[in-house]
Amino acid sequence: AEQFDFTDHSHRRWNPLTESWVLCSPHRAKRPWQGQQEKSTADDRPEYDPKCYLCPTNTRVGGDVSNPPYEATYVFPNDFPAVKKVQPAFSGTSDVANGSDCDVADIADDLLRAEGVRGQCSVVCFSPKHNIAMAQMSTDAIKHVVDTWAREYTELSKLDYINYVQIFENKGAVMGCSNPHPHGQIWALEDVPEEPSKEIRAMKKYRAAKGRCLLCDYAKLETADRSRLVCENDSFVCVVPFWAVWPYETLIVAKHHVASLPQLSEAQRVDLADILRRITCRYDNVFECSFPYSMGVHGAPSDGKDHSEDSHLHLHMYPPLLRSASVKKFLVGFEMMGEPQRDLTSEQAAERLRACSEIHYTAKDK
Amino acid sequence: AEQFDFTDHSHRRWNPLTESWVLCSPHRAKRPWQGQQEKSTADDRPEYDPKCYLCPTNTRVGGDVSNPPYEATYVFPNDFPAVKKVQPAFSGTSDVANGSDCDVADIADDLLRAEGVRGQCSVVCFSPKHNIAMAQMSTDAIKHVVDTWAREYTELSKLDYINYVQIFENKGAVMGCSNPHPHGQIWALEDVPEEPSKEIRAMKKYRAAKGRCLLCDYAKLETADRSRLVCENDSFVCVVPFWAVWPYETLIVAKHHVASLPQLSEAQRVDLADILRRITCRYDNVFECSFPYSMGVHGAPSDGKDHSEDSHLHLHMYPPLLRSASVKKFLVGFEMMGEPQRDLTSEQAAERLRACSEIHYTAKDK
Ligand SMILES: O=P(O)(O)O[C@H]1O[C@H](CO)[C@@H](O)[C@H](O)[C@H]1O
Ligand SMILES: O=P(O)(O)O[C@H]1O[C@H](CO)[C@@H](O)[C@H](O)[C@H]1O
Repeated sequence: AEQFDFTDHSHRRWNPLTESWVLCSPHRAKRPWQGQQEKSTADDRPEYDPKCYLCPTNTRVGGDVSNPPYEATYVFPNDFPAVKKVQPAFSGTSDVANGSDCDVADIADDLLRAEGVRGQCSVVCFSPKHNIAMAQMSTDAIKHVVDTWAREYTELSKLDYINYVQIFENKGAVMGCSNPHPHGQIWALEDVPEEPSKEIRAMKKYRAAKGRCLLCDYAKLETADRSRLVCENDSFVCVVPFWAVWPYETLIVAKHHVASLPQLSEAQRVDLADILRRITCRYDNVFECSFPYSMGVHGAPSDGKDHSEDSHLHLHMYPPLLRSASVKKFLVGFEMMGEPQRDLTSEQAAERLRACSEIHYTAKDK
Repeated sequence: AEQFDFTDHSHRRWNPLTESWVLCSPHRAKRPWQGQQEKSTADDRPEYDPKCYLCPTNTRVGGDVSNPPYEATYVFPNDFPAVKKVQPAFSGTSDVANGSDCDVADIADDLLRAEGVRGQCSVVCFSPKHNIAMAQMSTDAIKHVVDTWAREYTELSKLDYINYVQIFENKGAVMGCSNPHPHGQIWALEDVPEEPSKEIRAMKKYRAAKGRCLLCDYAKLETADRSRLVCENDSFVCVVPFWAVWPYETLIVAKHHVASLPQLSEAQRVDLADILRRITCRYDNVFECSFPYSMGVHGAPSDGKDHSEDSHLHLHMYPPLLRSASVKKFLVGFEMMGEPQRDLTSEQAAERLRACSEIHYTAKDK
């Protein structure tokens, strides 16, 4: 009888970090594509763009501040922050619920729940050079970014009202990034957002059941198994997780148990920079284009509680491209109403990424 | 002292259906947009396109089947299904986990969980006319679509191995739809997918706590409150839910307790068609363009269990446009790593939708 084959038969895989399923339909990658094509970012940008509000010495969006002539990284407050430091205390949902005027007040109390959220948002320029991305930066230069993240995390964590520091990057127009100058963002919030909350819940359960850390175990498993491993060094391993949603999604996990960025030693920060350079470079080489993605760092909340046991530093990379530089995976209809669905296995994606060079395709041309 | 104002101050709202939070930052809508612009679908399509594989009498993608000269709706099996009726039984994850060869076999058992998924996928053409969408169809014509959905749901539910029938539509190139001919899809699956599972869990909890149906209560609340209501008729109410994620997201809820489509009476089916026509028409009128969205029907699983108490028929509409026909909301970096974030309140979106006409902007021109 025919055997079940992960590369040909539909199956679901369990994400133990978020405790949810993803549907995998590997045979589906064969279907023709007649839908939307993405424009790839033109690669003829200058090293300095006088009209870019992130380039050194230029004027910012607001108009009254100029950037310094920065040489490595540069952090400034987001001119359009999603959350603000100061706002009135939250006083209940009564003004959005006319409920008190009618017989549905009890229902409104149960179903219209809200809370105020204070915080602060900043922008982190990765480099003064307008026309590069992490994939083309040196490990040294990326190390500056890692140090900047760690410093910002430390400073923001000290603020009493900040309970989580979310470091992330949106790269590429297709990911809603409105400026190609290499930069990321930091949103520091009064609450612990949904995604890290889910992960911490799962990490706690796993430790209660097994007495070990879920991500320590997972890093150990993947470095032994190797079928989903993309690259590694002494301190970090980069894998296409078993439960990946995005076609070339990867997870960068610290091999040793560490809760957050500031706890990394100098050598480990260099290792994180090394892994970031290597994976972003492999990404660009998959379709020989500047690979769009959203990336984020997950670690311990800064809520004053002890997270040494339930948090383990890791980074998620969510790149949307599926078939080519211009055809991405759409997580739409079924994915929104049912559950995430992917068209190739994690093992196939990892194999493809392993086959890519760690020398950038544009450097090879020279 | 300044009061907390939902239209100016950041807050989170709780989604009691999925039991998760969404961050709302209403002041953020003011930021300028220099990012990606979407192309809107050209409106000069012919009523019949000889190259469209969904138009009546044309040849399908596969090449060997021709569509009948259908006059209302037409259902056929998806040529590139995500799930298939027949595949070998699932036999464990050992072939994707080299785990058994090394000391991590126990970890692999815990962390690499998968299961086989059988099912079937079909395509539902809404109309023989290539150049229209629900917004431009008559209530009568949409009633044919509702009847077709109900019939397909009934037939698929009868299959022993099918436990959930997910009816949905991806509309517009920006939603990954590769053919503008009006159509939706049905994926019938061996498992109950994540999203309906979450909702059923929440519905059960609510009934256990209150002795009532969550969505019956919610429909009652919103018809009384009216601040988030867009339109209604005898059987259905369409609201921007308190916890909306997408800018103009709406929820269509049956006013009476009904678990799934086939249970609707003739009059109620006409009412569902009426609500669908009116909301899609309002959508098109927001930016005077063919409004892209993903839409899906949620109701009782067909897993042989009694769902009369934990399922309540409703439809989700997730349209991505934010500021104009060409600027959508990107749920990226923070949304992926932290939690969904929106830039206007549900009440503001509902007000805007209420202000839109139920006569299509193209009809007015004539
Ligand atoms: O089935 P289609 O229309 O080819 O494909 C579209 O809808 C599917 C179901 O929502 C998604 O999985 C695909 O990513 C999307 O492109
Ligand atoms: O902050 P930006 O770059 O203007 O905006 C981008 O990133 C944000 C955070 O992920 C998202 O909320 C926006 O939808 C996106 O366009």
